[in-house]
Amino acid sequence: MIEYRNLKIALLGAGNVGARVAQLLIEHSDELASRVGAGLELVGIAVRNVDAERSVDLPQELYTTDAESLILSADIVIELMGGIEPARSYILQALHSGADVVTGNKALLALHGNELFEAAEQVGAQLYYEAAAGGAIPIIRPLRDSLAGDRVKRILGIVNGTTNYILDRMDVDGDTMEAALAAATELGYAEADPTADIEGYDAAQKAAILARLAFHTAVPVDAVYREGITGVTSTMVDQARRSGYVVKLLAICERVVDPETGAEGVSARVHPALVSRLHPLAAVHGAKNAVFVEAEAAGDLMFYGAGAGGLETASAVLGDLVSAARRHVAGGPGVGEVFTSFLPILPIGTVLTRYQITLEVVDEPGVLARIASIFSEHSVSVEAVQQSVGSRSESERSTATLVIVTHQSTDAALSATVDAVARHEAVTCVKSVLRVEGA
Amino acid sequence: MIEYRNLKIALLGAGNVGARVAQLLIEHSDELASRVGAGLELVGIAVRNVDAERSVDLPQELYTTDAESLILSADIVIELMGGIEPARSYILQALHSGADVVTGNKALLALHGNELFEAAEQVGAQLYYEAAAGGAIPIIRPLRDSLAGDRVKRILGIVNGTTNYILDRMDVDGDTMEAALAAATELGYAEADPTADIEGYDAAQKAAILARLAFHTAVPVDAVYREGITGVTSTMVDQARRSGYVVKLLAICERVVDPETGAEGVSARVHPALVSRLHPLAAVHGAKNAVFVEAEAAGDLMFYGAGAGGLETASAVLGDLVSAARRHVAGGPGVGEVFTSFLPILPIGTVLTRYQITLEVVDEPGVLARIASIFSEHSVSVEAVQQSVGSRSESERSTATLVIVTHQSTDAALSATVDAVARHEAVTCVKSVLRVEGA
Repeated sequence: MIEYRNLKIALLGAGNVGARVAQLLIEHSDELASRVGAGLELVGIAVRNVDAERSVDLPQELYTTDAESLILSADIVIELMGGIEPARSYILQALHSGADVVTGNKALLALHGNELFEAAEQVGAQLYYEAAAGGAIPIIRPLRDSLAGDRVKRILGIVNGTTNYILDRMDVDGDTMEAALAAATELGYAEADPTADIEGYDAAQKAAILARLAFHTAVPVDAVYREGITGVTSTMVDQARRSGYVVKLLAICERVVDPETGAEGVSARVHPALVSRLHPLAAVHGAKNAVFVEAEAAGDLMFYGAGAGGLETASAVLGDLVSAARRHVAGGPGVGEVFTSFLPILPIGTVLTRYQITLEVVDEPGVLARIASIFSEHSVSVEAVQQSVGSRSESERSTATLVIVTHQSTDAALSATVDAVARHEAVTCVKSVLRVEGA
Repeated sequence: MIEYRNLKIALLGAGNVGARVAQLLIEHSDELASRVGAGLELVGIAVRNVDAERSVDLPQELYTTDAESLILSADIVIELMGGIEPARSYILQALHSGADVVTGNKALLALHGNELFEAAEQVGAQLYYEAAAGGAIPIIRPLRDSLAGDRVKRILGIVNGTTNYILDRMDVDGDTMEAALAAATELGYAEADPTADIEGYDAAQKAAILARLAFHTAVPVDAVYREGITGVTSTMVDQARRSGYVVKLLAICERVVDPETGAEGVSARVHPALVSRLHPLAAVHGAKNAVFVEAEAAGDLMFYGAGAGGLETASAVLGDLVSAARRHVAGGPGVGEVFTSFLPILPIGTVLTRYQITLEVVDEPGVLARIASIFSEHSVSVEAVQQSVGSRSESERSTATLVIVTHQSTDAALSATVDAVARHEAVTCVKSVLRVEGA
C-alpha cells in the first residue's frame, strides 16, 4: 500500500452533479489517488441546509453551511452551486487563496468569465470548466489545447439536450411540440420551468463559452443572437423531413467577414436550423449532444455524448479535478487562458447563411415571377422553388404554397428579403423561415 | 506590436506531416505567438539530405543534417521522422537536455513508450503525442485528462483510414477487396506496400497507445491480438449488409475479467467485426476515423474526424506544440503520465464477444440439430440461426448454408466451438467467422 500526501478538496453544492461528484470521489478514492500520485480528500461540502434530504447518501459530517472557511482550507475547490452569487464571490475567494477551481457554472462563465480567468492568471491558479459545455463530452480541452495550433472556422453544436429531445420526438415519433415537451418533463429532461432550455438561453451561454475558446476572443453572452424552438411546428418538422432535412437547435460560432469593412470578426448565434440528414449532426438523437468543429488544418471533427445528467457531468468535473491535482503534485502554476485576438463581435446580419422560406401565395399567373423578383432585388439568389398544388384558404381565395431555398447570402439581405416578401400583396402568409446550416 | 521572447523549436523530419507543421508555424507565427505569449521560432529542420525535393517550399537555410546540435539548441523538439532509430535516441537526448518533445511516432510509443515516459518524468519534461493515434482527432487529451476521473470500460475505434476506406468501398460501392485496395492506392490512402495498414499492424500500435491511456496500464504492442482485413470478402460484406451489419476493422480495448481467477485485466485486439448499422461507428465512411468510448460515469462518447493526412495531422502536432509552449511560458514542470494500475494483460480468449458463423453443410435431415449440439456442448448459446435454400456443391452433394449468431461467450469457448464445428462430418465448409461488436 502506497502512502500518499492528501490534497484537500472542497465541494460547493450538493445538487444533482455535486452529490455524484462526492460519491465518486469517496468510492474511487484509491484508484484516483494512484492516478494522481496524491490522495483526494473531500474535506467538506458547503450547502445551504445541512439537514436537507439528498439523493445520494454521504457522510453527514461533511456538510457545512460555512462555505468561506471550507474554501480557505482547500487546495482545490469544486463549485457546483450554480447561479451567479454567491458562486462568483466564492470562486474569486478560492482563487485569491491560491486554490485551483473546477466549475460547471456556464451562466457564471458566460457572464463573468473575463473577471474569473484574470483572477486565476494573476495568482497562478487555474480555472477548469469542462462540465460547463457539452456535459460529459470533452470539448473544452480539445478546443483549448488540441486545436490551439489550428484556426477554427466554425462550430455547429447541439448543446442542449432538452431541445434536442423535443425536436427528435417531433421528428421520429411525430409528436407535437406540446406532447414532446410533456414527455421531456416526465422523463426529467425538461425542468418545471423549461424557459432556459426551450428559449435557447442555456445554449447561448454555451455558445459564448465555445466561441471564446475557439476564437481566442471574449464573447459576451448578450452578443449571442438567440431564437428558441417555440416557433417550430409539426408541419415544419414534417416538411423538413420530406426535403431531406431535420430541424435541430444549433449553437453556431464562426469567423465572419464584415461586409462593410472587410475586417474579420466573430459571430455566435443560437436558433433552430434545417440540417441535411446526411450531416453527422442529423444522427444525434434523444437528449444527446454533439459539437461539430470545422478547422482549417484538422478538417471536420465531431464530439458526441451525453450533454447532461448528474453522473455524466460528474465525469467531466472529476476529469478536471484529476488534472488540477496532477498539476499540484508536479508543481508549477496554472496555464491560463490567453485571449488576445480581440476580434470584433459581428451581428447576425453579417453571417452568410441560406434560408428556406415557406409562403402561402394567391394562386394566380405571374405570382412566382413577382416573388422571385423580390429576391433578385435584394441580390439573393434562389437555389430551388417548389410550388405545391393550390388550395382554398379561409378567405376563399385560391392559394398555393411556395417553398423557396436560397443560395448563401448575408443574414441581413435574407431577412430584408423576407420582410419585403411578407409585405407583398400576393403573399397571404409567411408560414416558416428557417436557416439551412451545415451543408 | 507586442514583443515576445522566442521559444526555439526544432523539427526532426520534413515528410508529409513535418513539412506542413513547418509551413503552418511560419505562416501563422504572429497568431500562434499571441496565443502562447511567446514567439515560436523554428530554428531548424533535421533531414537526411538537405537537397532533397520537398512538397512544401521552406527556407533552405532551415535544413540541417546535424540533428544532435539542433536538438541541443531547442526548447521544444518535434519528432516526425518516424521509425524506431534514430527517433528514439533523439527523443531521449531532447528530454535529457530539458526540452519538451512532441511526437506523432506511434510505432515508437507502442514499442518504447515506457522508456520515453519515464525519461520525461525524471527530468520534469513532458512528452506530447496527440498525433500518434486518430490523426487530427483529439483523443489522447480526452482520455488522458478529461476522462481521468472516470473508469473507461471499453474503447471501440476505427483508427486506420486505409482499411476503413477499403471496407467502405466494398460496402457502399460493391467493390471487391482488390478493386477497393487499388482505388485506395490511387487516391494515396494506401501506401505502395499496404501491409502495415491492411494486416492491422498500424491499428494495433494505436490500440496499444489507447489502452495504455484508458486503463493506466502499460500494454505492449505484442500483447495486442491482431487480424487484418485480407480475409474479408465481398460475400461477407454483402451478407453483413443483409443482416443489418457493416464490416469494420476495429481496435477494441476493454476491461475484462479473467474467467479462471476472477481478477480484472485489460485486453486489446484488432480484427474485422460486424457492427450494427444503428451504431454511430457504422456511419464512419471513407478514410475517416472515430473512437467510441464507453465510460462508467460519462456513458458513451464518440470522437470523429480525419485519422490521417499531412495537414490534418499537423493540426494535432501544433496543438501539442502550443500546449508545451504555454507551459514553458507559465513555468513549471511537465505533468507526466502515471501508469499505476498494473492490470494484467489478458489474452483474447478471455474477452466476451459474439460470433456470426457462416457454414456450408450437407442438406440432410437432422444436421441443424447435430450442429446445435456442438454449441451447447461448449456452453455457447445460439441467438439466431438462418438456413438458406440448399444448393449443389462442387462435390455434387446437396448443401445448405447456415448463418449462426451466438449470444455472448468467451472468445476461447467460441473459438473452440468453431474448431469442433469445422471438424464435423456434416460441415463441408466454414465460410466465415466474424465477431459482432458494439451491440
